[in-house]
Amino acid sequence: MPKISEKGKVMPASPIRKLTPYAEKAKLQGKTVYHLNIGQPDIETPEIMLDAVKNIDFKVWSYTASEGTLTYRTKLAEYYNKLNYNITPEDIIVTAGGSEAIIFAMMSCLNPGDEVIIPEPFYANYNGFACECDVTVKPILSVIDNGFALPPIVEFEKLINEKTKAICICNPNNPTGYLYSRDEMQALKELALKYDLYIFSDEAYREFCYDGKAFISPMHLTGLAENVIVMDTVSKRYSACGARLGCLITKNKEVMATALKFAQARLSPGMVEQIAGTAAIDTPDSYFKEVNSMYTERRNTLVKALNKMQGVFCPNPGGAFYVVASLPIDDSDRFCQWMLEEFSFENQTVMMAPATGFYATEGAGKNEVRMAYVLNREDLNKAMICLEEALKIYPGRGRK
Amino acid sequence: MPKISEKGKVMPASPIRKLTPYAEKAKLQGKTVYHLNIGQPDIETPEIMLDAVKNIDFKVWSYTASEGTLTYRTKLAEYYNKLNYNITPEDIIVTAGGSEAIIFAMMSCLNPGDEVIIPEPFYANYNGFACECDVTVKPILSVIDNGFALPPIVEFEKLINEKTKAICICNPNNPTGYLYSRDEMQALKELALKYDLYIFSDEAYREFCYDGKAFISPMHLTGLAENVIVMDTVSKRYSACGARLGCLITKNKEVMATALKFAQARLSPGMVEQIAGTAAIDTPDSYFKEVNSMYTERRNTLVKALNKMQGVFCPNPGGAFYVVASLPIDDSDRFCQWMLEEFSFENQTVMMAPATGFYATEGAGKNEVRMAYVLNREDLNKAMICLEEALKIYPGRGRK
Ligand SMILES: Cc1ncc(COP(=O)(O)O)c(C=O)c1O
Ligand SMILES: Cc1ncc(COP(=O)(O)O)c(C=O)c1O
Repeated sequence: MPKISEKGKVMPASPIRKLTPYAEKAKLQGKTVYHLNIGQPDIETPEIMLDAVKNIDFKVWSYTASEGTLTYRTKLAEYYNKLNYNITPEDIIVTAGGSEAIIFAMMSCLNPGDEVIIPEPFYANYNGFACECDVTVKPILSVIDNGFALPPIVEFEKLINEKTKAICICNPNNPTGYLYSRDEMQALKELALKYDLYIFSDEAYREFCYDGKAFISPMHLTGLAENVIVMDTVSKRYSACGARLGCLITKNKEVMATALKFAQARLSPGMVEQIAGTAAIDTPDSYFKEVNSMYTERRNTLVKALNKMQGVFCPNPGGAFYVVASLPIDDSDRFCQWMLEEFSFENQTVMMAPATGFYATEGAGKNEVRMAYVLNREDLNKAMICLEEALKIYPGRGRK
Repeated sequence: MPKISEKGKVMPASPIRKLTPYAEKAKLQGKTVYHLNIGQPDIETPEIMLDAVKNIDFKVWSYTASEGTLTYRTKLAEYYNKLNYNITPEDIIVTAGGSEAIIFAMMSCLNPGDEVIIPEPFYANYNGFACECDVTVKPILSVIDNGFALPPIVEFEKLINEKTKAICICNPNNPTGYLYSRDEMQALKELALKYDLYIFSDEAYREFCYDGKAFISPMHLTGLAENVIVMDTVSKRYSACGARLGCLITKNKEVMATALKFAQARLSPGMVEQIAGTAAIDTPDSYFKEVNSMYTERRNTLVKALNKMQGVFCPNPGGAFYVVASLPIDDSDRFCQWMLEEFSFENQTVMMAPATGFYATEGAGKNEVRMAYVLNREDLNKAMICLEEALKIYPGRGRK
């Protein structure tokens, strides 16, 4: 029997899915499981987008240009220019979700063994993409005490060497929900220019900023055009995760020409999705307002409930739809599994993601969990009651 | 300005797209261009498939399981089992086109520097995927004189060394249209078992076999289950290239578990596509019969017209919708460009793909072109008249 590859062996399994078998067991036992573990929003996709799918009127479901249709890229450029990105359709390659944009960015910019610095905790699949591209992730610790703000620039500088090629940020952040300030973005800009680094800007959660706070993209900063690669997606913006529609944006012509070669090899992004994506740009502002106020309420509910529990701390994040909270527990992997396997309160329990999966540093995040507030407020409240009860009796409470 | 990666530099541009600017110029000059250069069929997508898209009735366009929905995989298994593949839904991972299945197969099975043997001419994007996966393609020449039959097994054996991990075949073949016989498949099986190699079986054109000839998959051969990875797609089967829906099939559990990790990193295949793909399995046989007879006629028209031209030879292939023909020309790249830039007959011309792009061996295919018979018979005939006239006056005629 032929052997699998070394890459296949070291490729990380998705940490978020590790607990799935336990959740299934819990359901078989008849427990209600509140899913706070994954970023699949329950929000409805805008009607205008679904209607575009229902109203397709072509006869041949054909390939489109590898970089995406001009129609869609033109409309996308309009959308981004309303946000002052100052781009043209030629600065965009349409991708199969943000995921493919991340792969294209890494493959186009980094050599095997090159390093990308990423504040941790970070989106766990960056590890998988880095593995695919033979890129080394250098984590830099952000801490819960200041709400997971950008680590001090001197800490970045300590990590920078001749192999460092890029800094990757996710803003607003998954898993922490942290929204980077203009000052933080400015500091990153100076760092990138000083050391001639790419900034990979994962903006999957751009639309989810709360309390009137402004979203600052590196695209908003002058003098940085050659360094910035934006990796975007419609997954969260329009609650259209299953559309697999994203894009890569850069004004760096050489990167663009390079990424295009990767795009050409896989021929085309989805055609129906681009039709839907084109329509989605005209989603009314009222949709986003409604979603925003719903998420704000949910976040407030969750953060308040968490901070009322003894020994629990949860910062109040400015964006996305996640929080990372610290709990009085010995080991978040053990705790989250125990919640599914052993615990129930009024026949209910909660599924959360152990924060360990979002840290590259061994041992970090052991007393932290990530929760996605993708449930309605009532269920969130029930989930919080469950969690509070669970913490009272968890055998590993308080231990390290 | 930060540098792009070495991989980005050596990544091949799509050879099929090289001539696109010349085609655009020809159109601007008012010429009618017959496109025989790409494999985008003009056949209509089955109504049942498009109707499934139009009839979607969900509210949230969500992620599906990374390996694809159980509904779709169950239906796919049914389809394959009608073809005697003897598989279960667990042997399938749904992918973004055949393209992603090829990447998953290479990444899961081959280490950097490992070698995959591929009979040439071959589908040009294998080069791009191999580049992405740091895999070395070892071409083995198939020749036009015997219609591009499988090269002798001894020739494969000459190339095999400790780095050889896989043989990749495309059956029926793009670009040659050749359909491998049972004896050829049997010989490949023995070779794979003798040297413990994977067989990557690209079956994008499975449905396109003519003259009553049987399609033999390595899935039909006993004792080979651990070695075979099928890379499939709905692109050509249902003329649904823009759906970006394919799959990887293997009964090798270790490969399956490995490929699943790559699938999980990119989260999900398209949801609407899987709904459409599920419906497509019930496409009536009459659809395939009609398509098959249409392509058979087109192939006959093309092959006959080509072989009537002086100095031209075109084998009569058993499958797919391509032919590779040898022409009395000095350089197919120059000729195909000249056809667009300089030539016209009654204000028409033909766009073809120089066969050089399908050979890894430098200099091979210089007097060959690939044509896709994806036009109606009338246009095909007009295109052939153009080509005949062109060959009469092409300045590089007969030269080497
Ligand atoms: C931070 C971040 N980036 C990228 C992605 C990839 O999303 P998609 O491939 O669906 O666009 C996700 C999905 O959850 C994410 O959270
Ligand atoms: C031989 C072969 N394999 C794979 C593909 C990839 O097709 P897709 O990614 O559209 O499934 C093609 C497309 O033309 C092909 O010709």
